[in-house]
Amino acid sequence: MKGITKRKDDYSKWYNDIISQADMAEHSPVKGCMVIKPYGYAIWENIRNILDKMFKETGHENLYFPLFIPESFIRKEADHVEGFAPHLAVVTHGGGKKLEENLIVRPTSEAIICSTYAKWVKSYRDLPLLYNQWANVVRWEMRTRLFLRTTEFLWQEGHTVHGSCEEAEEETLKMLEVYRSCAEDYMAISVIKGLKSESEKFAGALRTYSIEAMMQDKKALQSGTSHNLGQNFAKVFNIQYQNKQGHLEYAWQTSWGVSTRLIGALIMSHSDDMGLVLPPKMAPIHIVIIPIYKTLEELSDIMEVCRKIKEDIGIKYIVKIDDRDTEKPGAKFFEWEKKGVPIRVEVGPKDLKAKEAVLVRRDLNTKSRVSLETLTVSIEELLMDIQKTLLEKHRKFREENTFSIDNYGDFKNLYEGEEGFALCSWCGNPECEAKIQEETKATIRALPMDGREEAGVCIYCGKTSKVKAIFAKAY
Amino acid sequence: MKGITKRKDDYSKWYNDIISQADMAEHSPVKGCMVIKPYGYAIWENIRNILDKMFKETGHENLYFPLFIPESFIRKEADHVEGFAPHLAVVTHGGGKKLEENLIVRPTSEAIICSTYAKWVKSYRDLPLLYNQWANVVRWEMRTRLFLRTTEFLWQEGHTVHGSCEEAEEETLKMLEVYRSCAEDYMAISVIKGLKSESEKFAGALRTYSIEAMMQDKKALQSGTSHNLGQNFAKVFNIQYQNKQGHLEYAWQTSWGVSTRLIGALIMSHSDDMGLVLPPKMAPIHIVIIPIYKTLEELSDIMEVCRKIKEDIGIKYIVKIDDRDTEKPGAKFFEWEKKGVPIRVEVGPKDLKAKEAVLVRRDLNTKSRVSLETLTVSIEELLMDIQKTLLEKHRKFREENTFSIDNYGDFKNLYEGEEGFALCSWCGNPECEAKIQEETKATIRALPMDGREEAGVCIYCGKTSKVKAIFAKAY
Repeated sequence: MKGITKRKDDYSKWYNDIISQADMAEHSPVKGCMVIKPYGYAIWENIRNILDKMFKETGHENLYFPLFIPESFIRKEADHVEGFAPHLAVVTHGGGKKLEENLIVRPTSEAIICSTYAKWVKSYRDLPLLYNQWANVVRWEMRTRLFLRTTEFLWQEGHTVHGSCEEAEEETLKMLEVYRSCAEDYMAISVIKGLKSESEKFAGALRTYSIEAMMQDKKALQSGTSHNLGQNFAKVFNIQYQNKQGHLEYAWQTSWGVSTRLIGALIMSHSDDMGLVLPPKMAPIHIVIIPIYKTLEELSDIMEVCRKIKEDIGIKYIVKIDDRDTEKPGAKFFEWEKKGVPIRVEVGPKDLKAKEAVLVRRDLNTKSRVSLETLTVSIEELLMDIQKTLLEKHRKFREENTFSIDNYGDFKNLYEGEEGFALCSWCGNPECEAKIQEETKATIRALPMDGREEAGVCIYCGKTSKVKAIFAKAY
Repeated sequence: MKGITKRKDDYSKWYNDIISQADMAEHSPVKGCMVIKPYGYAIWENIRNILDKMFKETGHENLYFPLFIPESFIRKEADHVEGFAPHLAVVTHGGGKKLEENLIVRPTSEAIICSTYAKWVKSYRDLPLLYNQWANVVRWEMRTRLFLRTTEFLWQEGHTVHGSCEEAEEETLKMLEVYRSCAEDYMAISVIKGLKSESEKFAGALRTYSIEAMMQDKKALQSGTSHNLGQNFAKVFNIQYQNKQGHLEYAWQTSWGVSTRLIGALIMSHSDDMGLVLPPKMAPIHIVIIPIYKTLEELSDIMEVCRKIKEDIGIKYIVKIDDRDTEKPGAKFFEWEKKGVPIRVEVGPKDLKAKEAVLVRRDLNTKSRVSLETLTVSIEELLMDIQKTLLEKHRKFREENTFSIDNYGDFKNLYEGEEGFALCSWCGNPECEAKIQEETKATIRALPMDGREEAGVCIYCGKTSKVKAIFAKAY
């Protein structure tokens, strides 16, 4: 397959080739920033529509805060500024003049949002505030990769305010579950829900939860985060409300976000050496129909059938007939394979006679002949099967490459060799975590939420440990 | 009506009161930037969804270009930089270091998009490119007003490339028509389509068209612009393609945009001294149902009916039952009036007995009693009537305040007194245009597209004139 490097030869180049061959994005003339091309953006629109619907169903409303944050606001929360300082883009001049105070291009919006929430929240009757915004953010990066890490990216950031710690924790976990559902039920990406260690949590948060997915190189990709901010920001930005008893209390907050990084996760979860593979629920085009003919006489009958098929399945799915006369069928197959269209329908003279069509599923690259009469049902079933198969395949891949390890020697061997997720006991000491990272480059991705309370001895220091952690090298 | 200044007392304060009382937006701590609150943002989502659908139906795809533009790119097109230089926000530092080249926060994206299009366009087979992006832009402003003029605003910008001047002109006019349709058919804002004079056109364009609406203070608000860029940017950014004959040609381009300013137009087109008035197709909530009761016994029967009504009309419309027991009905009426909800349904004990409900339409503030049996149909008809009535009222207001004037004395009197649109002959000389502005503050809003070729003598200099122009004071 010309044009796409094989995964085993150069995984990183394979990833870039997939994006460029599917025409999803490219590097822009602005260092570290990307141009998201229409095919890539259509996938982002699908992700956005799914999440936006789920946010609204869980009671959230959208709003919009300014792109700029006064520098003094960012500096208010100590951990927050420490975490983001190396990544800030600074506006120093506006309207031809030097500004009195520098403006930061938002790397995340806690500082500007909390300063406004302080005015909005007066009484327990004002709570909860359940808001989200879709926006662009900027985090200066030295090394960038399309979708995975870019200086500017698109994301959503939810920012909620609550009247109790329990309610904030409930919200944090609810949105983590929304992210899991988006990843698994729509993107066919199997994920682990877990808690971040102190060293990996969001700068300024009380607790950070994330969904973590395994990519095909067996590295972990953090695909969404949900933070219980506790009262940290409320205390700094003075978000106080009068409770039912008439006393002033600091509010409890959460924030949660996913970004265009999810497109990187999608690409690396399913694609193969032929190009992009998309689960139907993410595909900008579900079905491509390719007429196969030698003479113009044949063409007219075949096109009639193609149009009829498009009309029938076009009610529910996005269908494209590729009737270009400048390309041969083989070239068309190749092109749509690279774009990951889930189903290809071929209609040729023989098919016409037999009142059949050929269906090719992109994920397994297998063919089947189907009667034209039942084609709509067959396609619908096939789309559902592709969606399900991709998720199962992805889950199985992670399971097969996740190892319970209780010996540091085995642990080190794993990260010198095949890679994967290691499920290990960990004493909770950040020093062990740091040493492990130094020696193996593996970090704690999450303390998985199902059964993380499990007694054992720390993989590094051998001390008593109460939790299990998932270690991996990460994007 | 406490809380909202009357239009006749202080129009500008009235506008601000409407926004604050309907809880649509507020000034942010960042100078010149606004916070768009959920109720205001929901209106923007309605506008965006309508336009996005129309863009896609006319063959356009969405994509996304970087927020930042290298300073040298902006400087390439002479008129462009001259037009935008006073409004630029400049990033000079990133990641803790001074940048080698300053980055401009996009005021509009021609410069970054054209530099990329130059790589994408090689042959006539690559054309047309029909792309749009939804984005935030920044134009430094000294005097800002919520929605109407803010340093950061949200908008869409279409950027297309074509193989001929005719095709670019056709696209320019097609998108102008899309904007007219959005304004009139959805926002109930009657607009004039017209061509801008040279002095008012977009910096770098060949020709700019716009839709212009009359606000209730009889000033004009430019509500959308569509530019035929000719080959200006193609020559500067070197966008060349090989035509069918094998020769290299510069491409022809268009760009077109509308912004959150449209929300300002919406507010000022329909609202009254009681608050916001919204056409149903723009309303985040179509119908509010208010139960009226004295005893808790009454409440239970009434709530049952309210819920049944919501269930029936909730299939097609967004319905809210306001069953708060902390507010009296009068306070609730007042609150939803301020938010411009098109229809209020009142259900009280008497209505229940008569198997009726009271409908109150927000635009005319008139009541009618309607049988519960036919309520759904009545509401549907009423919504359609409100939509139509608002557009007709708005169109009539402009027509009544547009004057054909052929005498400069009358012209000056108009702008010292009642204001309005003046339809006058104009010789085409920018000096007459400038003098008129200097002496009256009225500017040419547009050369209207229906019948602008009409012989006469210039309102200012008396020389022969071929065109009619609409003059007005403008936002």
